[in-house]
Parts: sequence; structure tokens; C-alpha cells
Amino acid sequence: MSKTGKQSLRVVQFGIGPIGASTLRTVLSKGDAFEVVGAIDVDPAKVGRDAALVAGRDTPCGVKVRSDADAVLRETKPDVVLHTTSSFLDRMYDQLIVCARAGCNVVSSTEELSYPYHRHPRISQELDAAARENGVTLLGTGVNPGYAMDALALMATGVCNTVKSIRVRRVVDAGKRRLPLQMKVGAGLSEAKFNEKKATGTFGHIGLVESLYMVAEKLGWTLDRIDERLNPVISTKEVVTPYLTVESGQVAGIHHAAEGFVGERQVVSLDLKMYVGADDPVDAVTVVGDPPIDLAIRGGIFGDTATVAALINAAPLVRDARPGLVTVADIPLPRAYAAVD
Amino acid sequence: MSKTGKQSLRVVQFGIGPIGASTLRTVLSKGDAFEVVGAIDVDPAKVGRDAALVAGRDTPCGVKVRSDADAVLRETKPDVVLHTTSSFLDRMYDQLIVCARAGCNVVSSTEELSYPYHRHPRISQELDAAARENGVTLLGTGVNPGYAMDALALMATGVCNTVKSIRVRRVVDAGKRRLPLQMKVGAGLSEAKFNEKKATGTFGHIGLVESLYMVAEKLGWTLDRIDERLNPVISTKEVVTPYLTVESGQVAGIHHAAEGFVGERQVVSLDLKMYVGADDPVDAVTVVGDPPIDLAIRGGIFGDTATVAALINAAPLVRDARPGLVTVADIPLPRAYAAVD
Repeated sequence: MSKTGKQSLRVVQFGIGPIGASTLRTVLSKGDAFEVVGAIDVDPAKVGRDAALVAGRDTPCGVKVRSDADAVLRETKPDVVLHTTSSFLDRMYDQLIVCARAGCNVVSSTEELSYPYHRHPRISQELDAAARENGVTLLGTGVNPGYAMDALALMATGVCNTVKSIRVRRVVDAGKRRLPLQMKVGAGLSEAKFNEKKATGTFGHIGLVESLYMVAEKLGWTLDRIDERLNPVISTKEVVTPYLTVESGQVAGIHHAAEGFVGERQVVSLDLKMYVGADDPVDAVTVVGDPPIDLAIRGGIFGDTATVAALINAAPLVRDARPGLVTVADIPLPRAYAAVD
Repeated sequence: MSKTGKQSLRVVQFGIGPIGASTLRTVLSKGDAFEVVGAIDVDPAKVGRDAALVAGRDTPCGVKVRSDADAVLRETKPDVVLHTTSSFLDRMYDQLIVCARAGCNVVSSTEELSYPYHRHPRISQELDAAARENGVTLLGTGVNPGYAMDALALMATGVCNTVKSIRVRRVVDAGKRRLPLQMKVGAGLSEAKFNEKKATGTFGHIGLVESLYMVAEKLGWTLDRIDERLNPVISTKEVVTPYLTVESGQVAGIHHAAEGFVGERQVVSLDLKMYVGADDPVDAVTVVGDPPIDLAIRGGIFGDTATVAALINAAPLVRDARPGLVTVADIPLPRAYAAVD
């Protein structure tokens, strides 16, 4: 395992769905910085084919997609596994155990892994133990969770002597994002249909509560309760995206908010709107404290490419980190990797 | 040495000038989070007096200021030394060696220590070796260098797949800062007098070139050359601060810029204005890349308190970091410590 950062970083792509394919394409575009040594997916339509072609590149990379994860990892011994299979930890944490036992560090897009200690305390302990036993590091990250509503919020407090409360606001124009995201936020549904589907737990941003706990606990607050709300954003105009049309009065997307309280005092507020036709996309962090901080990324962070970047940029940091289950707050601050000419 | 973060963090304050006094007052205001176990200063007017009283608190802390640094450190064995004696490394790096040999981690406000590898390559090697031999971590930080024009800039690229160039802009209203800063930027001088003093090397922000190298090298650029410019900002109006008056036509402060080039291409630009009467203080980072990032802290970061916060907030991160000479880009991202109710 290179600790110099000069050699190629040897990676296995684990999962070649939309995010995995985009991650693999980006890794392959970065020249000598990375060497793709393996690719894993269970989809029979992908197994046996060249991974680059499966990911949508024009030229093959010489690595075939295989479904036998354990064998791929033990044969190739990558520095880091780029893991992109599911948002939910209980559905795939055995995949992470397989990585750890094969001696592989992991950067995963699994939203629930970003700060898993509350939703999955037992799985968190198991993952941490497996990682330590095998001397590897496991991280869940992405743009959100992993950056916009947690790491950036913590970073904003880095020059504060006191923090009374912190508010994070993210507005995403879903109309500029890929179709699955537009569908995920319910764009084009009637309000009744939205509420019907909401009752089944279909909607809502996965990872918001994870970000809330990360921000609160890394700042030293023990939350007494959290308040989570999910509502539709109703469009006041007709919005046409490359994929669909939202009429005025239909659902444009979601407004998902999570707030953390110490006693009756609200100390952390995360407010996320993802809808088509959003006029003023932004990522903003407001710290009430000394000194106060009023930070904004104007235009917001474009999520489709930023998610991939967050995963790839974390790879060298995770390779060099202490063993165990970690969060983005436990490793050096994110910065672009192999991103310059 | 506590690794739990639950016990008090035991600190020695090394240097009780204006920044050290403010640091000590803030540490003492944070209750059980810190325990001040020693205080060092060579000023005969301070030695022998209670450190809290020297720092301007009303109530003593029971720790006397001493000038025998080595003995204080070896007797008290602090988790971290808060070191605030000089901006310049060659004047005091022996103080850091004393800390390392006594087995003490250090967070220092020494601007030249923030990224010392270019200006002081030999001293950097010596400090790194001494730190490793003694199993301690040495860090130079503050608001600038250490945050506004380097760590925040790197963080802004954390969700980028490509970075073509990066520009950092900081505008500080020196009229809201302490008198030494107003004098340091030449407020109230004639332009002729400014240029006379500039020729002696009196002016300019220490650490700007350190920030430039940190941003460039952590992003993977090897700079072929840097271009540094220092000019007065001439006031176009009368500005009255609590300490002095600047007439229209007099110097209001400094405009200090540093640019880094790869070949003929400018890849990093740091632009710092510190002057009395600045209308629009801001800390801004613009990343030309994919995705582009347009980040701003509106109103800027108030430097007097933020410097102290940056030092104190780094203390627990440095306690838990790997041994050696490190930079803010090598330890977990800054976040407020012991700052919440």
C-alpha cells in the first residue's frame, strides 16, 4: 500500500449502477493517478463485460466485471474500494465486512454509513471492529451526506470561540439533475399522490438525520430530541425539464427538514429543498456564535458530479487514515485529488 | 494523555503577548474543557505573576508565569502547548524544539510555521525529526494563515473532479480590529512614508506565501514561479477608528497579493486587502473547475477572535494526530471545540 501518494492509487469499483458508473468513468479519466484493478457487480447483464464499457466509456480498460466480490478483492488487493451499491446499511453491510476481511480500505456512497452510530449502533460496532482487526479504514461520504450539510457546517465553526446554534440550508434545482433524482423527489406528482407515496416511506433525503447527528455531536451537543419534517414543494409555475413537465399546482419536489434540540433549545437546523424550478440554488451555513459566520456557496454545489468527486477525493485520505470506521470529520479536510493538469 | 476527549485538555500557554493573553483568557472561559497547567513568558514584568491576571482576567488561575520553559514543560507535561511568541520561525524554532523534546504537542500562531517547507526547509526537517523522535505533533495555524486563505480554499475543492484554477479573496476592515493591526497595515501614513517603510520590509501579511504553497501543493501543482505584490490602499474618504483618523489621500491599509504559476498559467491567486474603512469585508473562494465553486463568507471572518479560536480548536486535533510536523491540511477538518453550552 503506497503511503507516498506518488504511485497510482489501486482501486476496485464495487457496484456499477448510475453513481458507480460515473465514479468509474471519472477515475478512468484521471490518468496515472488511479489504476482500476477490479470491478464488482451482481447484475448478470454486466458480469463478464469490460468494466469501462459497462460504465459508458468508449474504450475498454481491460478489467472484467465479476460478481465474486471476495475473490476479486483478495486477488487484486486494492488500496481502496470505491463502494456504490445501496443507500441503506442493513441491506449491504456484509459487503463492507467482506472488504474489511480482505484487507481493503473502503470509501462508500452509502448514505447511512456517513454517521451510522444512531440508526445502526450494532452494525457500526461490527464494522469498526472488523476494520480495526484487519487494519483498514471504512468511510461513508458523498456530497450530502458527507459535505454540504455536515463537513462544511463543521468547518464553518472552525474559527469560532462559541457556537450558540447552527443552521444549514441547501436548495437544489432538481430540474438540472438526472432523472432518477427528479423522480425521487416526486416531481410531477399530485399532492395527494405524493402524500400517498410519502406514507410508504418512499420520499425524503437519506442521510439528513445522519448529518444532523454528526454536526451536533462533533460540536459537543448531546441531542435530547430531533424533529424531522417532510413536505412537498408545490410548483407555482409550469417547469419543463429535459425529462418531464411539472404543471403549476403539482409537486415540484421535497422540503425535508431536521432539527436537533438540547432541552427546548434548537441548536442545529438542517433545511433541504430539492425541487425542479428552484430559482436560487445555494448551500449556506449560518453560525450564531463568536465570531458569527455567514457562509454560502452561491449557485449551490452541483450534486451529480460532486458526489462522485467526494468519493474519489476521499480515497487517498482513507488509504492513509487510522484503521476503523471513520467519518468525514475524522480524516483530513476534503480537497480535490488528481484534479489538476 | 487523554484520547477520550472527555477529560480536561491540559495546556501550557507559551507567550503572553496580545494573542497569547487573548488565547489564555478564552481557554480559561471554557470551564472544565481545559486545565491551564503552566504559563511561560520571558518578560520580567510578567514573570512571577498569576497568568490569568497577566492575561487581563479579574480572577487568578493559580498558575504563575515562569521564564524557564523547559522546566515548566517537563514538570507539567501538558497535552498541548499553545505557543504564541513570534511570527517568524528562525527567531524561535528552538522554542519548538524545547517543546518537542519535553514530549509536548504544540499548536503555534507562528505564521511561518503554517507551511514552512519552502521558506525554511532545513528548520522544517529539524522540527519534523524532533517531533517524530519524541512522538509529538507540531502545527502552525490561525485564521490567516491556517484557515481563510488556505484550509477553506482546499475545502472548497473537496467536491470537485477537476480544478483549473483557484482564487481566494479576503477583505478585512482594519478599522474594526485592534490598534497593532491598524498600525501594521500603515493606516494614516502618507503614501511616501508607506513606501519608505515598505522598503525596510515592515509591511505585508506574514503567511500569504505559505498559504499559496499549501493550496498549490496539496492540490498537486508544482509551482514554477510565484508573483508577490504589496501596495498601499489609498483612502478616498476620511475614516475615524477608535484609535486613529485616516484622511482622504492617506494610506488606509495594504493590498497584498500572491499568485502561483505553472508555466505561464496562473493557477492560484490569493488577494488580501486589510484597510480601515473597507466597505465590504468578505472571505471568498472561487474554484474554476467541475463543478465550479463560488464560496463566500459574507462580512468576512473577524480576525482578532478567530485567530484565538483557530488555535484553541486545533488543540484536541493535534493531541490526537500522528507525530511530526503537520499542517492544517493533514489533520481532521477544523471545528469548534468546547464552544457550546
